[in-house]
Amino acid sequence: MDKILRIDMGAEGGPRITESPLGGYAGMGGRGMTSAIISKEVPPTCHPLSAENKLVIAPGLLSGTTGAMSGRLSVGCKSPLTGGIKEANSGGQPSQVLARLGYAAIVLEGKPPTDDLYKVVINRDGATISVDNDLKMLPNYDAVAKIKGEYGDKVACISIGPAGEMKMSTASIACTDMEMRPTRHAGRGGVGAVMGSKGVKVIVLDDAGKTMRSPKDPEKFKEANKRFVEGLRNHPVTGQGLPAYGTNVLTNIVNEAGGYPTYNFKQGRYDEAHLISGETQAETEKARGGLATHGCHRGCVIRCSGIYHDKDGHFLTKQPEYETVWAHGGNCGICDLDAIATLDFLDDNYGLDTIEMGATIGVAMEAGLLKFGDAEGAINLLHEVGKGTPLGRILGNGAAVTGKVFGVERVPVVKGQALPAYDPRAVQGVGVTYATSPMGADHTAGYAVTANILKVGGEVDPLKPQGQIELSRDLQIATAAVDATGMCLFIAFALLDQPETFQALLDMINAFYGLDLAADGVTDLGKKILSMERDFNARAGFTAHQDRLPRFFTQERLAPHNVTFAVKDEELDQVFNW
Amino acid sequence: MDKILRIDMGAEGGPRITESPLGGYAGMGGRGMTSAIISKEVPPTCHPLSAENKLVIAPGLLSGTTGAMSGRLSVGCKSPLTGGIKEANSGGQPSQVLARLGYAAIVLEGKPPTDDLYKVVINRDGATISVDNDLKMLPNYDAVAKIKGEYGDKVACISIGPAGEMKMSTASIACTDMEMRPTRHAGRGGVGAVMGSKGVKVIVLDDAGKTMRSPKDPEKFKEANKRFVEGLRNHPVTGQGLPAYGTNVLTNIVNEAGGYPTYNFKQGRYDEAHLISGETQAETEKARGGLATHGCHRGCVIRCSGIYHDKDGHFLTKQPEYETVWAHGGNCGICDLDAIATLDFLDDNYGLDTIEMGATIGVAMEAGLLKFGDAEGAINLLHEVGKGTPLGRILGNGAAVTGKVFGVERVPVVKGQALPAYDPRAVQGVGVTYATSPMGADHTAGYAVTANILKVGGEVDPLKPQGQIELSRDLQIATAAVDATGMCLFIAFALLDQPETFQALLDMINAFYGLDLAADGVTDLGKKILSMERDFNARAGFTAHQDRLPRFFTQERLAPHNVTFAVKDEELDQVFNW
Repeated sequence: MDKILRIDMGAEGGPRITESPLGGYAGMGGRGMTSAIISKEVPPTCHPLSAENKLVIAPGLLSGTTGAMSGRLSVGCKSPLTGGIKEANSGGQPSQVLARLGYAAIVLEGKPPTDDLYKVVINRDGATISVDNDLKMLPNYDAVAKIKGEYGDKVACISIGPAGEMKMSTASIACTDMEMRPTRHAGRGGVGAVMGSKGVKVIVLDDAGKTMRSPKDPEKFKEANKRFVEGLRNHPVTGQGLPAYGTNVLTNIVNEAGGYPTYNFKQGRYDEAHLISGETQAETEKARGGLATHGCHRGCVIRCSGIYHDKDGHFLTKQPEYETVWAHGGNCGICDLDAIATLDFLDDNYGLDTIEMGATIGVAMEAGLLKFGDAEGAINLLHEVGKGTPLGRILGNGAAVTGKVFGVERVPVVKGQALPAYDPRAVQGVGVTYATSPMGADHTAGYAVTANILKVGGEVDPLKPQGQIELSRDLQIATAAVDATGMCLFIAFALLDQPETFQALLDMINAFYGLDLAADGVTDLGKKILSMERDFNARAGFTAHQDRLPRFFTQERLAPHNVTFAVKDEELDQVFNW
Repeated sequence: MDKILRIDMGAEGGPRITESPLGGYAGMGGRGMTSAIISKEVPPTCHPLSAENKLVIAPGLLSGTTGAMSGRLSVGCKSPLTGGIKEANSGGQPSQVLARLGYAAIVLEGKPPTDDLYKVVINRDGATISVDNDLKMLPNYDAVAKIKGEYGDKVACISIGPAGEMKMSTASIACTDMEMRPTRHAGRGGVGAVMGSKGVKVIVLDDAGKTMRSPKDPEKFKEANKRFVEGLRNHPVTGQGLPAYGTNVLTNIVNEAGGYPTYNFKQGRYDEAHLISGETQAETEKARGGLATHGCHRGCVIRCSGIYHDKDGHFLTKQPEYETVWAHGGNCGICDLDAIATLDFLDDNYGLDTIEMGATIGVAMEAGLLKFGDAEGAINLLHEVGKGTPLGRILGNGAAVTGKVFGVERVPVVKGQALPAYDPRAVQGVGVTYATSPMGADHTAGYAVTANILKVGGEVDPLKPQGQIELSRDLQIATAAVDATGMCLFIAFALLDQPETFQALLDMINAFYGLDLAADGVTDLGKKILSMERDFNARAGFTAHQDRLPRFFTQERLAPHNVTFAVKDEELDQVFNW
C-alpha cells in the first residue's frame, strides 16, 4: 500500500494511468487520505461535476491485513449534494482487496470529452482502463453480474448504478460483499455522481496472487488483534445486539427514547415501530431461510449484516440497515418490512443513498405527492428515479432540491444533506454532530447516540443541551481517526467502554507500522483530518451559518417529550475550538 | 401616503387588517421602504415561504404625484430564489393608485392555515379581504378579466399567476398597465411565490374619489417637473432611442459590442441578432397595427413600451423588453420575434420572470432537453411550468435548480439568480454589479452598461477591470436612491449626463416634501438602503463568497473579444467600502 493510482480521464488521446509513491500523503489512510488529497488538490469553489473535482478511493491504514474489522473503504470528493468536502464510507470486499494490491488510493481526475463509459481493472499486473458502453445504464446487480461473467466470482467491484451515470446528487458508489453482490455502499453526498462525471462505471479489483499485508512485528500484531477481537466479543453491543439483530436493533430503542423521527420529523415515536424492528426483521429472515447474522466483508467479527428473503424464500436484498428501515419506514409511515426491503434493493440497484432517498420521499409526502404510508407509491417513486424521468431527477437530487421544487418548508437537511434516524430534539448530542460536521447531517460523524441513549461511553441527558458539545467534539475527533484506519466504526462501542480494547487497537497500529502511537496520537490524527475538512469548507464559502439545524427544530416541539433543540448557536461554534 | 396597511394572513379567525402610521419608516419609499421593513421585521434565516417572511409592496416617494415617471412600485421580501433580501420593481398603474389611496406600504404577514385563496380590495373606504377560490390557478390575464367584470376597468391590479400559487421561485407579481392588462411585472427573485405563500391572489386598487398627492410647494414642484421632463426629452436615450425602439434598441448595440450572451453564455455575439432587434421589432409592430411607442403607466414621458400584434393584427403581448428578447431569443438561439412574443405572453400569463425563464430554458438546452433554437420546444416548456408538471416545477424554480437537477456545469447565476443580457466578460462593469449586488445577478442594480457601452455618464473600457469597481459602486448607490423615489430607472441616462436634470429631480423631492436635500443626501439615502440590504444578507449567512460570478466566467474566454472576467476577488470586496 505504498503507491497512488491516478487516472486522468480528460487526458489527450484517452484516459492516462499513472502510479506514484505516496510522497506527502504517507501515513494517511481512509478518510485521512481522501480528505488530504481533496483538500490539497481540488479547488474548493469548483463545480462538483467539473474536471477540477477528483474522486479519491482509499482503503484504511489497516485494510488488507489480518486485523479484524479492517474492511472499510473511504470515498472522497467535493460533494455535489453539500458543496463541501465529502468522505463516504463503505463496507464490503474492495477495501481489503485494493490494499492487498498495494494501492493507498485511486484518484479519478479530469473529465472525459465524450460520453463513453469506462471500466477499470486492477490486478497484480497493474491497472488498465477500457471503454465498455454495454455497461451503460445497467443497474448495479446487472453490472456486477456482467463483470462476474467476465472475471469470475473472486473479484471485488466498485460500481455506480444509473443514478451515478445521471449524475444525481444522491447517487452512491456500490461495493460488492462476500457473495459478490453490490450491497454495501459509500452512500452519502452524491459520490456516485462524481464517479459518473468521470465516466467510470466500475472498478474491478482482482487480488489473485497477492497476499495479506505484513506487519512490521507480526507476532505483536497477532496478539493485539486477538485482544481486540476478544474485546469486541465481550461488549454487549458488538458481541450480542449487533450480531443478533443487526443495526436495526436500534428501532425499538430509539423509538422508546422518543427520538425516532416519524412522518418527516413530525413526531418522535412511531406506533408501528414494532412491526419493522430488528427483532421482527431477524425473525422474518430466519423463518424464510435468510440470515440474521452475517459479515459484510471477510475479517468481520461483529457480523451485523444479514440476508433478507422474500415470502417465497428467494433473495430479495441484504438485511436493510436501521437507517434504511427508518428512512423508508417510520419516516414515511411505512410499516411493511417487505416493502422496505424492496426499497432497499431498488436503492442498491439504482445506486442511491437510502437515507437521502427515504428523507426525500418523506418530503415528497409532505408536499402531497403521495400519502404517508403509501408503500407502493414510494416504490414507484424509486422507479421514477431509476428511469430518470423529470420527477425522478428531482427526487434523485435529494431532499433539499425536492423541498425547493415543491415549495416545502419542513425539509430536514444540514448543508443540503438529509438528517439520519435520530431526531436532534430528543437526541441533542447527535443534533450537534448533524449541525457541525463538515460532512453535512451525518450520524456516523460523531455518534452521540452512545452516551445520549445507549449509555455507552458515559451518560449525557439526551433532552438537554448540557454536555453535548463536548460529547460531539470528542466523538467527531475519534471518528475521524477511526475512519482513517479502515476499521468499522462499530468497534467504537467497545473502545469507548473498554480501555483495554482501545489499547489493543493502538497496539495493532503500532505493531503494523512500527510506531509508538499513544492515545494522544489518535486524537491528533482526528483533529488533523477535521481541520483539513473544515479548512476546505471554509475556502468553499462555508461559515458558522452552515453549522446550523433547520429552523423548525428550534421552533416546533417534538412529541412525546415536548422538546425543541436547545443547544445555542454560540455553543455550536465551540465544537471545533479544541 | 402616511400609513401602512398590514394584513396578518395567519390571524386567529381569518386575516386581520390593521392600519398604522409610518413611525420609524417615515421618509422611506419604494425600495427604501421595502428593504427597511424586511430588514427590521423578517428573521434573516427564516424559510422564504414561512409565516415569518413578509411581502411588502410600496410606492415610491413621488408616486401618486403629478411628477413624470413616478409610477414604479417596489415589492420586497426574503427571496425564495436567492435566500437573501429582495426588491423587485414594476411599472404599470398600481404604484400611482396605491400612493393616492394614501398607503406607503402594504405588508402581507403570517400564513393562512388553509389553502383558501384571497382577494384584497383597497378603495377610499379602506381595505377589505375575502376568499375567492374561483380565482384559483387562473392565469393573470384571466384573473384580471374576472376583476374587470366585477370592479370595472378603472381599477389597478397586483396579481399572481399559477406560478405564484404553486410557490415557484421564478414567480413574478403582475401589475396592470393603462389598458388594464397584467403586462408589467415585479419579476425577479420569486416575489410571486411569497405572495402565493400568503394565499393572496390579487390586490384590487380603486382610487375613485381620490386626488393627486399635493406637494408642500405646488408651484416649485410644477416648475421643477417641467425642467425634469425637458431634460428627459433632450437626452438621446430617453428622448429618442427608448421611445422609438423600446429597450430592445439595445440588441444591436450590445451584440455589436460583443457582449450579447448567446447559447447559454457560450459566445458574445449572435449572428441572427438583427432579426430580433428593436428596429425589426418596431417595424413589425407598426406594420401589424400595434404600437412601437407607448407608456406603461400614466405620467410616463419616455414611453419605451409598446403593443405587439400577431400576424393577423390581434394583440399578442406588450412589446417584449430587451431582456426578454435576449433571454428567450439569443440566449436560446431563437430568432423568431413571434415565438419570443408568445413566450413573453406566456411568462406574463403564468406569472414568471422572463429573464429567469429564458436563462432556465438555456440551461435546459445545455442539458440536452431540447436543441438551441427550438422555439416550439421552448413554448412547450413554458406550458409545462404553467401546468406544474414535475418538469415544469423544475424549470419554474429557475436556472440554478434546473442546472442542479440535470447535472449541468454551466449555470449563469449569482446568489441563485440568473444573469441578465450582458456578458460580464465583455461588459465587466455590469459583471461587478452582478457579483456584488445584494439582489443577486441584476443589471438594474447598477447598470454599468452606461459608461461601458453607451458612453453615458463617462467612458470605462468594458473589456478591462480598471475603473469598474468605482463605476458599479456609484451606480449601485444612485440606483438604490432612485428606486426609493418611485421614479423609473431610465431617468438615470439623463441624470448622469445632465446635471441640470439631476437638480430638477432634487428640486421636485424638496418641493414635494419641504426638504432641502442636496446631492449628498441622495448618496446617503442610497448607501443607507444598500447597507440595510447587505446587513440582512450577512445575517442570512452571505459572505464575500456569495459576491462572486460563476467560475466559468473567469476560466472560459468569450468570443469575439477572447476575454475572461478579470476583476479580482479582492477588488469585488471593495465595492461597498465607501
